[in-house]
Amino acid sequence: MSKKDVKKVVLAYSGGLDTSIILKWLQDEYKAEVITFTADLGQGEEVEPARVKAIACGIKPENVFILDIKEEFVKDYVFPMFRANAIYEGEYLLGTSIARPLIAKKLIDIANETGADAVSHGATGKGNDQVRFEIGALALRPDIKVIAPWREWELNSRESLLEYARKHGIEIAQKHLDKDGNPAISPYSMDANLLHISYEGLHLENPSNEPEESMWLWTTPPELAPDEAEYLTLTYKNGDPIALNGEQMSPATLLEKLNQYGNKHGIGRVDIVENRYVGMKARGCYETPGGTIMLKAHRAIESICLDREAAHLKDELMPKYAKLIYQGYWFSPEREMLQAAIDATQKNVEGDVRVKLYKGNVMVVGRESVNSLYDDAYSTFEKDEVYNQKDAEGFIRLNALRFIIAGKNPNRK
Amino acid sequence: MSKKDVKKVVLAYSGGLDTSIILKWLQDEYKAEVITFTADLGQGEEVEPARVKAIACGIKPENVFILDIKEEFVKDYVFPMFRANAIYEGEYLLGTSIARPLIAKKLIDIANETGADAVSHGATGKGNDQVRFEIGALALRPDIKVIAPWREWELNSRESLLEYARKHGIEIAQKHLDKDGNPAISPYSMDANLLHISYEGLHLENPSNEPEESMWLWTTPPELAPDEAEYLTLTYKNGDPIALNGEQMSPATLLEKLNQYGNKHGIGRVDIVENRYVGMKARGCYETPGGTIMLKAHRAIESICLDREAAHLKDELMPKYAKLIYQGYWFSPEREMLQAAIDATQKNVEGDVRVKLYKGNVMVVGRESVNSLYDDAYSTFEKDEVYNQKDAEGFIRLNALRFIIAGKNPNRK
Amino acid sequence: MSKKDVKKVVLAYSGGLDTSIILKWLQDEYKAEVITFTADLGQGEEVEPARVKAIACGIKPENVFILDIKEEFVKDYVFPMFRANAIYEGEYLLGTSIARPLIAKKLIDIANETGADAVSHGATGKGNDQVRFEIGALALRPDIKVIAPWREWELNSRESLLEYARKHGIEIAQKHLDKDGNPAISPYSMDANLLHISYEGLHLENPSNEPEESMWLWTTPPELAPDEAEYLTLTYKNGDPIALNGEQMSPATLLEKLNQYGNKHGIGRVDIVENRYVGMKARGCYETPGGTIMLKAHRAIESICLDREAAHLKDELMPKYAKLIYQGYWFSPEREMLQAAIDATQKNVEGDVRVKLYKGNVMVVGRESVNSLYDDAYSTFEKDEVYNQKDAEGFIRLNALRFIIAGKNPNRK
Amino acid sequence: MSKKDVKKVVLAYSGGLDTSIILKWLQDEYKAEVITFTADLGQGEEVEPARVKAIACGIKPENVFILDIKEEFVKDYVFPMFRANAIYEGEYLLGTSIARPLIAKKLIDIANETGADAVSHGATGKGNDQVRFEIGALALRPDIKVIAPWREWELNSRESLLEYARKHGIEIAQKHLDKDGNPAISPYSMDANLLHISYEGLHLENPSNEPEESMWLWTTPPELAPDEAEYLTLTYKNGDPIALNGEQMSPATLLEKLNQYGNKHGIGRVDIVENRYVGMKARGCYETPGGTIMLKAHRAIESICLDREAAHLKDELMPKYAKLIYQGYWFSPEREMLQAAIDATQKNVEGDVRVKLYKGNVMVVGRESVNSLYDDAYSTFEKDEVYNQKDAEGFIRLNALRFIIAGKNPNRK
Repeated sequence: MSKKDVKKVVLAYSGGLDTSIILKWLQDEYKAEVITFTADLGQGEEVEPARVKAIACGIKPENVFILDIKEEFVKDYVFPMFRANAIYEGEYLLGTSIARPLIAKKLIDIANETGADAVSHGATGKGNDQVRFEIGALALRPDIKVIAPWREWELNSRESLLEYARKHGIEIAQKHLDKDGNPAISPYSMDANLLHISYEGLHLENPSNEPEESMWLWTTPPELAPDEAEYLTLTYKNGDPIALNGEQMSPATLLEKLNQYGNKHGIGRVDIVENRYVGMKARGCYETPGGTIMLKAHRAIESICLDREAAHLKDELMPKYAKLIYQGYWFSPEREMLQAAIDATQKNVEGDVRVKLYKGNVMVVGRESVNSLYDDAYSTFEKDEVYNQKDAEGFIRLNALRFIIAGKNPNRK
Repeated sequence: MSKKDVKKVVLAYSGGLDTSIILKWLQDEYKAEVITFTADLGQGEEVEPARVKAIACGIKPENVFILDIKEEFVKDYVFPMFRANAIYEGEYLLGTSIARPLIAKKLIDIANETGADAVSHGATGKGNDQVRFEIGALALRPDIKVIAPWREWELNSRESLLEYARKHGIEIAQKHLDKDGNPAISPYSMDANLLHISYEGLHLENPSNEPEESMWLWTTPPELAPDEAEYLTLTYKNGDPIALNGEQMSPATLLEKLNQYGNKHGIGRVDIVENRYVGMKARGCYETPGGTIMLKAHRAIESICLDREAAHLKDELMPKYAKLIYQGYWFSPEREMLQAAIDATQKNVEGDVRVKLYKGNVMVVGRESVNSLYDDAYSTFEKDEVYNQKDAEGFIRLNALRFIIAGKNPNRK
Repeated sequence: MSKKDVKKVVLAYSGGLDTSIILKWLQDEYKAEVITFTADLGQGEEVEPARVKAIACGIKPENVFILDIKEEFVKDYVFPMFRANAIYEGEYLLGTSIARPLIAKKLIDIANETGADAVSHGATGKGNDQVRFEIGALALRPDIKVIAPWREWELNSRESLLEYARKHGIEIAQKHLDKDGNPAISPYSMDANLLHISYEGLHLENPSNEPEESMWLWTTPPELAPDEAEYLTLTYKNGDPIALNGEQMSPATLLEKLNQYGNKHGIGRVDIVENRYVGMKARGCYETPGGTIMLKAHRAIESICLDREAAHLKDELMPKYAKLIYQGYWFSPEREMLQAAIDATQKNVEGDVRVKLYKGNVMVVGRESVNSLYDDAYSTFEKDEVYNQKDAEGFIRLNALRFIIAGKNPNRK
Repeated sequence: MSKKDVKKVVLAYSGGLDTSIILKWLQDEYKAEVITFTADLGQGEEVEPARVKAIACGIKPENVFILDIKEEFVKDYVFPMFRANAIYEGEYLLGTSIARPLIAKKLIDIANETGADAVSHGATGKGNDQVRFEIGALALRPDIKVIAPWREWELNSRESLLEYARKHGIEIAQKHLDKDGNPAISPYSMDANLLHISYEGLHLENPSNEPEESMWLWTTPPELAPDEAEYLTLTYKNGDPIALNGEQMSPATLLEKLNQYGNKHGIGRVDIVENRYVGMKARGCYETPGGTIMLKAHRAIESICLDREAAHLKDELMPKYAKLIYQGYWFSPEREMLQAAIDATQKNVEGDVRVKLYKGNVMVVGRESVNSLYDDAYSTFEKDEVYNQKDAEGFIRLNALRFIIAGKNPNRK
């Protein structure tokens, strides 16, 4: 599909500087009708201003789509991912990665609804997000045209963007809020949603530099967190958290509350160099306050509810699962295969986990479940009635048999 | 081999209550000559008293073997394992597991040297250690007779053991030292070496109980750790740490120093329910102060020195590698295969990692290497000369091609 | 549970020599009521004679259970396994392994129905089948007592068995049928069901001996198979074969027909040394005529219907899946996890495969499907409209980027 | 690097039509000095005519490189791959894939030697070979310019190529030889080397078409193969075959001989639909006569020499290893990791395998080794002295313990 064939484009529009420029640019370059989609994913900023800005840029009111998709996000994307205990490269909780497929899905839903033939996004040509958006979109609608302005235009520096904005009268506003809910003036390249906030660029581009304390927006510095620990109880059912301190709540509400606890106790900061899908390494800093608590708690409830080999198989499959999400393959048969395997283990993952939060630490201090596989009659050091220690001899002997046979052949190297 | 055929037994002898009883029991039941082996693995207690005790029990002086194997332990067991970033079930750093094969090896070395036909150990019939000792021993010498008194005798409770000790005049002493180097009176079932100390039993047998603060012997409670953070620099070469804050030191010395830092800052406590190899779940608490720092630091130096796919393959293989060590298969062809794969990646893992220690937290704050694969010319958000953003289009397009083709077939479910 | 507490035992009874001796022995040694279970799994021998024999041994008629479970066997065990393309150690199609869990299940069903407290089987203490029976039984009913006479009694050679049989007047009959349906006089240790027949022992115990042609009972020697090839069409739906040459038929009927074709054309012989779960290697020969055709055909229909990455993930998981079945873990959470992953891929595996059978060879010569992902518009060497060759440049460039960056650092080893 | 900056290009030149056109086109379009590289990889055609043709096209004699790299190919590429028992998608022995990295290496070696700044190849923009050539080249020399004419020019059909050839007076010759060594007139798209010959295109583009018998050039049709079976003995050392029927020979000689045997007996034909790296499925037919024999034989010698868990781990890693080779990642850290793991298992893989060849079948009929782990004292059905059947009880009991514990909790789903 060539430029002039594009009639209608759905743009993932945050209302921020970059996507405002894109909105303008799409109108100018493509002469296409632009539909904006702004999602409330819990990024901690108002989404309604995006409507005003879009209309101010000439978008028809009926072409402005603003959706609160926090519950869908947590229930259908975040929770399934946490069932897998997914971590990318040992550290990253995939906060940005997991939001992208949902945005891609909404872009396609809106395109289908409005008869649009293209979608557009503000991700650059050097990062992972372009891949996540576009693979998601193409998996859901193979004939969609994807417009990625950063790969097309000449505005390849912050400088030239600001220049373009000034020329076209586009407002340059701050969009992120800090941990106290105030607008944050941050020069980092950031992304936020209910699961996390990320930072890249500037000072961080040298991986031997420590992040400045002022960079972190969503968590209290551990040094300033309360001097007294706080305990939480998370209740799980079918592998998902359903209640906090005994109170049932919706997925998004629960994650929001966990974020508040995590923020208060300085929990969930990560500083890493990660491998991007497009081939280079990048430094990223992340705050995932509630997610960090959830990961610990989920592992803990699994520790008493999951069969050993199911747990180990989950651990062996996890890196691949996490990589698939990182690289944008949420809507793929292979992610669905792994999800089917993971979900098949969660029906007994049910019960309570107690965690202690203290200055950056999440410590599991108790877990219990009606489905528990832990039975102290078996593990006790005291005399028991249920386990015959002599069984261990045969167990060891046959497990060692291959070594015994090998050891008897003097020719073996 | 029947009881009466056993002529000489090498016993893994700690000098503590259980193995002192075993020493006596072996003499009584097997009428065999007993050789004691006591290892200094950095468990933080004196090993020489074991000599006195052994001789007091009638062991010939030349049959008392006391070896300081701390350097061998760290260099040939701990470090190779840390190259793999090994963690069992997401939490456990394998502190006990990794020491067992070395003890098994020494038992067999001494058996070969002294012409012994059997080895013996003090592990119970319900735990993992019996498997680790015996598989290790049989892998190294297939015809060795293994005597596991706990599986044979009738002394299956603490009560009956104490009774036996009293009857035979065996001294009941405390063997563990606390974080200040004083003898610790602890009723838990414990194991310690330079990498960690573990606790099981008692109060912990209910997994919903929080451990008592007094249980932890090797780390300052985070609440009492210094209010000021401390920074360390670890230097790596070939994947192993070789210097601390610029000072080169031997493997064991380095780990010992790291333990002191970790202790001071309350680092490395873990409280889990784990899956034993013999089939049941067990609650365990662990302190791995230096190891916890090393794991973070090793991942950080790898993050800039390792190729992406090598790093991912390591992550995929790691759970299996950790399981092998947990289950006692150090001396197995499959562990050697995985080690060969892991070690093949470490030749470029070299450079400095800076970490910040603060009240239970280890935070990586900087990493640099002459072998670094990080190049901000590629990752920067600013304009660059080296990367062509248009390449991403083809990359995405071909990666999505299978979805595009699938999406075009309307019959697909 | 001690010997004298056993009141009722369900015995897996083939009617052959070994289990007839066990039947007698259970009555003598355990003084328990014996219930016999004889399954028609398509082993190619009459099962009704087992009733006569059991009754002759004093079993009450209502305690004789004879069930035709061929359809359940193929539908719920064989077909799910073939969806995975399972092969153990590169060669073995798991013909014996897959039948054992179903027998275990039936033993437990009958035990529950009749109020029995024990089950018994005729597998020796050196093989895999004891593990498969017993793990299956214990997974389905944890308190069941399992009696494995071969591990208990003193009749540990063919000689002493025959002696015992003669003494107790037990008939020594041949149970296997050859490829023409005649009773086969075979001295090998054998097992058969609708999927395969196996041979062990004797001449085969030297792995450098070629099997005698007379050993093979179920397939025409390739040398004597028809000189003309024959073509078959297999139709798949949801990953399972549902029709042969256009004719729909039940699972067991379909497999039976495939066995006839395979037999006729000398297909499905395998001669291997395999690794038993209990630790030693064993030589086994197998004939799996229909299964060999099904495996080829299933891979072929998948080759056009399955997404690449789903197919590759299946291939990566397969060895573990096959090992689980071989080692007796059919009723395990980890097998169920893998099955869930495998089954999630099969909804589009539908269509026709044409194979050519000729003197031991199965050659796929055609495949088609309404769900096909094959599109010659993409793969053709001729000019096309759908694929932009220039996309490949970006694809390659970004896939190579990590090597390019590494190559630019002259310090890298 | 732009077109006009290219000064010298090394072209992978077969002497066939396509690369002759490329040779011409490079001279015309790039005005660059062209160096030709023609490899004798055992493709079964003369390589010297390429010299004549190249010189006829104006290439300086010193710029014509013709190398016999058959031994290097088999020893350093084919054999290491066969140690892994590599098969792609269950069927394809990777005959083309494994040759590409060696060609890439030679192109770079020659570029370094001659001061060339670019390399070029004749692979299209739709296939795997472009990826294999280019990733190989970039991994070995990151700054190399790669020219892929098929992605650049307009000659995108056989028609337009022939037109171009006629216009520039380029000879259109047949390059492949059939099984009797005669020039074959084949319209298929083919590739050949000592390991295999491949066919794509034309009639095959419909995956439901059976290949025409006349297509197959390298193997006797099974129907016309000898009516009598033939036996071979292959001798292995360190996992590689070193002798045939007792006669030691070089790697390439051995493979050549095996090809002759395979050809004679109609062995090694494969007909599949495979998944290309660039995203579409393609139909391919392959003849790998010697390789098919080697794969069977290698598995057989491993079956007695390899430890069970090492063998299983190899099987689990193999699909990934095969995929890496298929997709062009021979010179990657991840392939090297896997190779290190594989090679670590081969030191005991030594001994003789006897195979029977008959009309398309390769049947292993015997194997023996001084390093054998097979010991009939353990596996025999007769009474033995070395194995205690009672050990199996404890083995089973502890392996089932997790199911027993789970089964006792009535709340579990």
